Amino acid sequence: MSIDRLRRFIGDMTSLTGGAWQDKDENAVVEVGARLLGELVKHDDWLPEQAAKVPAHGYAQNLLWCDPFERFCVVSFVWAPKANTPVHDHEMWGLVGMLRGSETSLGFTRHPETGVLVPGTLTRLEPGDVEVLVPAPRNPAGDIHQVTNALDDRGSISIHVYGGNIGAVRRHTYDVKTGQPNLFVSGYTNREQPNIWDRSAEVRAAS
Amino acid sequence: MSIDRLRRFIGDMTSLTGGAWQDKDENAVVEVGARLLGELVKHDDWLPEQAAKVPAHGYAQNLLWCDPFERFCVVSFVWAPKANTPVHDHEMWGLVGMLRGSETSLGFTRHPETGVLVPGTLTRLEPGDVEVLVPAPRNPAGDIHQVTNALDDRGSISIHVYGGNIGAVRRHTYDVKTGQPNLFVSGYTNREQPNIWDRSAEVRAAS
Ligand SMILES: [Fe+3]
Ligand SMILES: [Fe+3]
Ligand SMILES: [Mg+2]
Repeated sequence: MSIDRLRRFIGDMTSLTGGAWQDKDENAVVEVGARLLGELVKHDDWLPEQAAKVPAHGYAQNLLWCDPFERFCVVSFVWAPKANTPVHDHEMWGLVGMLRGSETSLGFTRHPETGVLVPGTLTRLEPGDVEVLVPAPRNPAGDIHQVTNALDDRGSISIHVYGGNIGAVRRHTYDVKTGQPNLFVSGYTNREQPNIWDRSAEVRAAS
Repeated sequence: MSIDRLRRFIGDMTSLTGGAWQDKDENAVVEVGARLLGELVKHDDWLPEQAAKVPAHGYAQNLLWCDPFERFCVVSFVWAPKANTPVHDHEMWGLVGMLRGSETSLGFTRHPETGVLVPGTLTRLEPGDVEVLVPAPRNPAGDIHQVTNALDDRGSISIHVYGGNIGAVRRHTYDVKTGQPNLFVSGYTNREQPNIWDRSAEVRAAS
């Protein structure tokens, strides 16, 4: 199986985001996508090792796949022990599937008058869990959050799926005290992606 | 422009191979695809350098893109001086666009009685040229050929597009004297593909 799982997931997400009625029903894409991602991260036997290397500090955002029309992308986030993100938003739907280790996501809501960010729900993800992120106003709670590796002695890995090319869009980090947004274009850590399409060894073996 | 050309080509080929009527009209895919590839190789300002490195000998087959449903792929072939392939077939349509340097393609036809391979047309490609390969019986001349770097003092690069995941299919090399086919699964040279989707630098620059 192994890398086949990722290829199958990419095919399914391509069908889902390229479907006719789904174009007008983002909720359906998110709901079905979350189930597909749940299947993918239920097994930890497929992530190419180049995309699983724990960095010395902080976190790596390794692009595994981008749809040719940038309708979705798949990214492996690899967290150093205790690493965390700034408080940030996404400007598109997002799905976070826990593959290895554990992470927490602390949600923030904006105070309607002052704009100050108020900490809300703390979600802890264990392997196989999927968190759904949908921006305001479609989701009143919004998608502003801060993610932290829940483990202080080991790396953790989550697989993120977004409704666009997340590394290339204008989004924001936030100053929690003032609620001030700052322009954020995250990019990707990897200049090279694993070649997931070289099935020659298995084809030769089956010949 | 640069890498945008490749992204645009991939999008256009995805639309072309994913279209409704094209599924039943391979000739149209090949004809339109050849025009699109001609546009791509008219400019030599977009190939990522990892995929352009001239090997010490022989040739590198670097996968640049594979369609999520393996309906087509894009490969950069980088030839060492004088390098050539075995005589081989493809088992799918193919397009060869010359990007840098020059190569020759020597076609072979099978003798109807003896099966022996008879050399036929010699095609020389210069930058911007596109060769179309269609297997027998759809093309009576067939697609069996041998490709050689026409330059003996420099590397050459051609961009190949095939109607499937060329590195992962069972195809053949041939013994010219006897016509004997041998199983051939070419694979790819690169274990990593260039990340062509990190547009963060240009988005930041435009912000
Ligand atoms: Fe996030
Ligand atoms: Fe060939
Ligand atoms: Mg189709």
